[in-house]
Amino acid sequence: MAGSSIGCIFRVTTWGESHGSAIGAVVDGCPSGIVLDTAFIQSFLNRRKPGQSEFTTKRTESDEVEILSGVFDGKTTGTPISLIIRNRDMHFSDYDDLKDVFRPGHADYTYEMKYGIRDYRGGGRSSGRETAARVAAGAVAMAFLRTKGIHFLTYTKSIGNITVPISDYHLAEISENSLYMPSNVYAAKASDLIKEAVAEKNSVGGIIEGQVYDLQAGIGEPVFSKLDAELGKAFFSIGAVKGVEFGDGFAAATMRGSEHNDAFIIKDNGISKSTNHAGGILGGISDGSPLVYRLAVKPTASIAQPQNTVNNNKEAVSLNIKGRHDPCIVPRAVVVAEAMAAITIADLLLLKY
Amino acid sequence: MAGSSIGCIFRVTTWGESHGSAIGAVVDGCPSGIVLDTAFIQSFLNRRKPGQSEFTTKRTESDEVEILSGVFDGKTTGTPISLIIRNRDMHFSDYDDLKDVFRPGHADYTYEMKYGIRDYRGGGRSSGRETAARVAAGAVAMAFLRTKGIHFLTYTKSIGNITVPISDYHLAEISENSLYMPSNVYAAKASDLIKEAVAEKNSVGGIIEGQVYDLQAGIGEPVFSKLDAELGKAFFSIGAVKGVEFGDGFAAATMRGSEHNDAFIIKDNGISKSTNHAGGILGGISDGSPLVYRLAVKPTASIAQPQNTVNNNKEAVSLNIKGRHDPCIVPRAVVVAEAMAAITIADLLLLKY
Amino acid sequence: MAGSSIGCIFRVTTWGESHGSAIGAVVDGCPSGIVLDTAFIQSFLNRRKPGQSEFTTKRTESDEVEILSGVFDGKTTGTPISLIIRNRDMHFSDYDDLKDVFRPGHADYTYEMKYGIRDYRGGGRSSGRETAARVAAGAVAMAFLRTKGIHFLTYTKSIGNITVPISDYHLAEISENSLYMPSNVYAAKASDLIKEAVAEKNSVGGIIEGQVYDLQAGIGEPVFSKLDAELGKAFFSIGAVKGVEFGDGFAAATMRGSEHNDAFIIKDNGISKSTNHAGGILGGISDGSPLVYRLAVKPTASIAQPQNTVNNNKEAVSLNIKGRHDPCIVPRAVVVAEAMAAITIADLLLLKY
Amino acid sequence: MAGSSIGCIFRVTTWGESHGSAIGAVVDGCPSGIVLDTAFIQSFLNRRKPGQSEFTTKRTESDEVEILSGVFDGKTTGTPISLIIRNRDMHFSDYDDLKDVFRPGHADYTYEMKYGIRDYRGGGRSSGRETAARVAAGAVAMAFLRTKGIHFLTYTKSIGNITVPISDYHLAEISENSLYMPSNVYAAKASDLIKEAVAEKNSVGGIIEGQVYDLQAGIGEPVFSKLDAELGKAFFSIGAVKGVEFGDGFAAATMRGSEHNDAFIIKDNGISKSTNHAGGILGGISDGSPLVYRLAVKPTASIAQPQNTVNNNKEAVSLNIKGRHDPCIVPRAVVVAEAMAAITIADLLLLKY
Repeated sequence: MAGSSIGCIFRVTTWGESHGSAIGAVVDGCPSGIVLDTAFIQSFLNRRKPGQSEFTTKRTESDEVEILSGVFDGKTTGTPISLIIRNRDMHFSDYDDLKDVFRPGHADYTYEMKYGIRDYRGGGRSSGRETAARVAAGAVAMAFLRTKGIHFLTYTKSIGNITVPISDYHLAEISENSLYMPSNVYAAKASDLIKEAVAEKNSVGGIIEGQVYDLQAGIGEPVFSKLDAELGKAFFSIGAVKGVEFGDGFAAATMRGSEHNDAFIIKDNGISKSTNHAGGILGGISDGSPLVYRLAVKPTASIAQPQNTVNNNKEAVSLNIKGRHDPCIVPRAVVVAEAMAAITIADLLLLKY
Repeated sequence: MAGSSIGCIFRVTTWGESHGSAIGAVVDGCPSGIVLDTAFIQSFLNRRKPGQSEFTTKRTESDEVEILSGVFDGKTTGTPISLIIRNRDMHFSDYDDLKDVFRPGHADYTYEMKYGIRDYRGGGRSSGRETAARVAAGAVAMAFLRTKGIHFLTYTKSIGNITVPISDYHLAEISENSLYMPSNVYAAKASDLIKEAVAEKNSVGGIIEGQVYDLQAGIGEPVFSKLDAELGKAFFSIGAVKGVEFGDGFAAATMRGSEHNDAFIIKDNGISKSTNHAGGILGGISDGSPLVYRLAVKPTASIAQPQNTVNNNKEAVSLNIKGRHDPCIVPRAVVVAEAMAAITIADLLLLKY
Repeated sequence: MAGSSIGCIFRVTTWGESHGSAIGAVVDGCPSGIVLDTAFIQSFLNRRKPGQSEFTTKRTESDEVEILSGVFDGKTTGTPISLIIRNRDMHFSDYDDLKDVFRPGHADYTYEMKYGIRDYRGGGRSSGRETAARVAAGAVAMAFLRTKGIHFLTYTKSIGNITVPISDYHLAEISENSLYMPSNVYAAKASDLIKEAVAEKNSVGGIIEGQVYDLQAGIGEPVFSKLDAELGKAFFSIGAVKGVEFGDGFAAATMRGSEHNDAFIIKDNGISKSTNHAGGILGGISDGSPLVYRLAVKPTASIAQPQNTVNNNKEAVSLNIKGRHDPCIVPRAVVVAEAMAAITIADLLLLKY
Repeated sequence: MAGSSIGCIFRVTTWGESHGSAIGAVVDGCPSGIVLDTAFIQSFLNRRKPGQSEFTTKRTESDEVEILSGVFDGKTTGTPISLIIRNRDMHFSDYDDLKDVFRPGHADYTYEMKYGIRDYRGGGRSSGRETAARVAAGAVAMAFLRTKGIHFLTYTKSIGNITVPISDYHLAEISENSLYMPSNVYAAKASDLIKEAVAEKNSVGGIIEGQVYDLQAGIGEPVFSKLDAELGKAFFSIGAVKGVEFGDGFAAATMRGSEHNDAFIIKDNGISKSTNHAGGILGGISDGSPLVYRLAVKPTASIAQPQNTVNNNKEAVSLNIKGRHDPCIVPRAVVVAEAMAAITIADLLLLKY
């Protein structure tokens, strides 16, 4: 039953409900001597927190993190790092109607089936709010990985049917638009799409893409804890993710072997690959090329239009969801994906030693 | 470093190399009292073993399994079940040339980087042959799951660009063609495609689709050991898999919330869903609808045409792969996907109790 | 490196340092629907907290626990239960001298060797204060186990050479003396012994004994996660424990098989044992008799007399420990032992289902 | 339920029953490049195998081990090492009478309660024969640890009430007597004691002591995976062990702090301890002094005299155990203890990196 931990050596445990008093994470196994402070963690939380654009929930959470243990004189001590974020702006009344109703696309029904009891306020444990704890923990992983020279780049590849083609990538623009797209031009188009969805009381999904640079070859533990296997688990553990792929991903299914195979070459006196269809992973182990992954994110389940559903008494009801919801969760999930990648890579990197 | 086990309660450990004396699996945590014999396990291994069609490797392995422990008087005893399959038809000489050469698309280079030593014969541990041990272990999981009324259907959805549309599914035909496609008509087209690839000394990939029926609601452990998260890990641990999706998967990224949300309905006095875009999983927990997943399988890395690569001395070389290889691994991987699904579900089902 | 978690299904993670802002525990995997509130947890913490007698540290900590998550409407929800206890009465200056000095019998040196950095204030993570978090988590386990009718009795068997013989056990008196001994008469003798040790600026050890009643047969997972094996781990994870035994324990080494074997008998129409030399465990599995264990606790390492030691610069120094220390830690460790037993049994009980 | 694995990074899984076709172990996570062959493993198995003295079972098992995977060109490859030992000399008829009877001191009853089915032949999975697989796996751990300069010395400290005092230790004599005692004189006395027990159709227990030399400081993972905690688990997982202690162990309970504390000193320009009451562990982490532990082993449960017990039908019966049993299991368990120590230390050593 204990599903709230991930990782073996670098192990993250999250806790907390959307409308409880706080949420948090315990990061155990972080190496000692890593420089870490709340400001660094906050910089990651700020990429996830609401209120960054007109498209995010109106719930105002500053998501201030407190470090309760594991850091001494500005450095990690090797003991568990306890991180806490207090919940502040809670509208309990928004959820009174949902006590006995199962919202489509949400985990209300399955939690009821599994546990027989649930904190229905804001989705409780199944709320996207839990991912703030992941981001805080991911920042700790990132602080460690930076000491190893490993860098992450994560962005919105698509929103609905608006996809930025690789040929139009302007990586510097990722931080210039509130949708975290690698193109301000496409971000503008995507904004229009989201506005359209809002107007029709609807929501849209999209695709997140991530790259990890300067990851040495040799990371990943065959045959079950392969790099892609552990990343796959980490990514699918994010609420709205319905698909994950590495390198060419699903496109590989239609390719010939001669197209997909990456030729090994000698470059700068080292072994490299001429292409990277594999996305940086061969046999479940990093190959020294950039790691490339994509996540398919479903449209936000909470929509403002009436929906047909049932309640706990097995009666059909019409549902009108109140509350404050993002019409597109993709931009705020970018840093969540990055955090899960960092946590996973930190763990497998430490396993390698 | 110990990556050869998967599962917590129902735990599978595989061992063995392509050209060692044997491969095998230890299945620990299988409930006691389950009827099990070698014939049942063999029926699964036969779906994976070579020689079923003109498109599979010419290596002739009968893949006979022996049960060494854990079964007494035809029933499991609750103690570990040790399964062994002897390797028989090994052509060691096929691999002499590969001792120092890194084959494109294979794990030769990454194993060398990780371990500094590798059994290069037939890919050693990274060979697809390891999956026979998974299939044997999966059969044990299946024996248990059948006592719970859970059933699996797994098949080839696509080979290259030949995709069977849902409207043309004839599930009874899956076992009628050697490609395990739910349509003999499409299987014929796919056969032509594979023949074409063989003619050009090439290989093709494809997509495997699986469905799990009569899985009760409530399986999966939020927030990290969700049903889709653990299945995602299990599927990506299969060598050639580059993408995984559940329900609508990547298509969900382009949908509106109103399209993707499955309305809850009352059916046969129980709670059900009018559609199944979610693929049977909500919030990482089974919702009682059929579980639906798809795996993107890359084209076989071993192709008969010359390829550019490098060797251990950092010299560019031209490679001609000998050996006996499948031009399309998809049909034989169908039962591997099913086995990994069964192992994962057995574990999470036992965790639920 | 992640050693701050214990348990598989019922998993406890503790965090926090003696002189950090707080300590706490996350209890993951507790079944849903268990009645739980802070008062219940507090009743366990009160058995451990300082100030219960003249023999405990003068540090005044009320050890008030706050439940941050996992409980809704007075019941557990099946999601992680986060427990926090703020540190309040810290005398940082007591520890300035210890920054570079390794106290004999403490973990200062080994933490320095392992992590290269340590929070030296009050022992940091290695402080006995960490066990408050275990007790809080143990109370959660206890709340669950009580619903299964399982009961615990734990007490001080010996302090120094003052041992209560079984023939003099008065179990009702355990809660009547501040040493938690099953005899007020022996407790008075032990008090004198402790006073004597205090007078000579010294400390004493002792033995804790515990019994678990109404534990059904069948708990424990051979061959490595046996009931005694997991309890052994849990008990030895308590700082000052140097020995653990079950049933007759070390005395069994001098017995004949005919003496030690417990004959099975029929009692009340069920199978029982005529004696309980085994301490309730056969083959690593509970046998339905009371579980009996004993822990040897070393004398408190912090003593008020000068000691020879060395510092970080490899210089011999004479050490005078300031701070507020218990001359005998045994009575306060009684509930810690009980907590670890409860956590372990909760986990193995859930594994059994 | 999956209790047949131990270790996180260096993970050992054993399988097999006393009277099945074979027993074995899979060792996963052993570093690559370690020299390993069957002769080395056999040298450990020979210390455990029957027939070494007049006091061991008459079952003649050569305990020949076969390495099925994970070793290539005489070195480990980092992939799982599968070890198999065929069972050869089985007297099935010895156990016909035991099908429905619960032997006192054995796991028959608890296995029946737990699993509802059991291989009653020779104790099945609960047989001491399973420890042969542990010894084989321990030899692999030992091969690794020797490359790190770590050495083990393990011997019989006591048999019944015959205890070798430290002042009479002659370590060279350990290998000179079949009881593995560090004194031939005491071994002769112990032999007489065992003969006496045989004459009265009885059995005796004893104490195993082990020392581990040249273990660097810093091994062990607070707060739950401490070195003593993990060793405690490993030792208590051995069938007949009823007590475990480190350093002064239970004697510490009667000592004063000033007696038990080991003063740190400077020796050979390094930090050392003047004494070793702690047994080489402080705060759950190795301190650089020799690790010292003792295990209390109960007398063999199978005795040749009639015993009262019950059967599966809840009837009182008189039991006469046939079969071939050791009157004292201690000498053969010496190498089992050493193997479990080696497996545990290998795992924690790898975790440290």
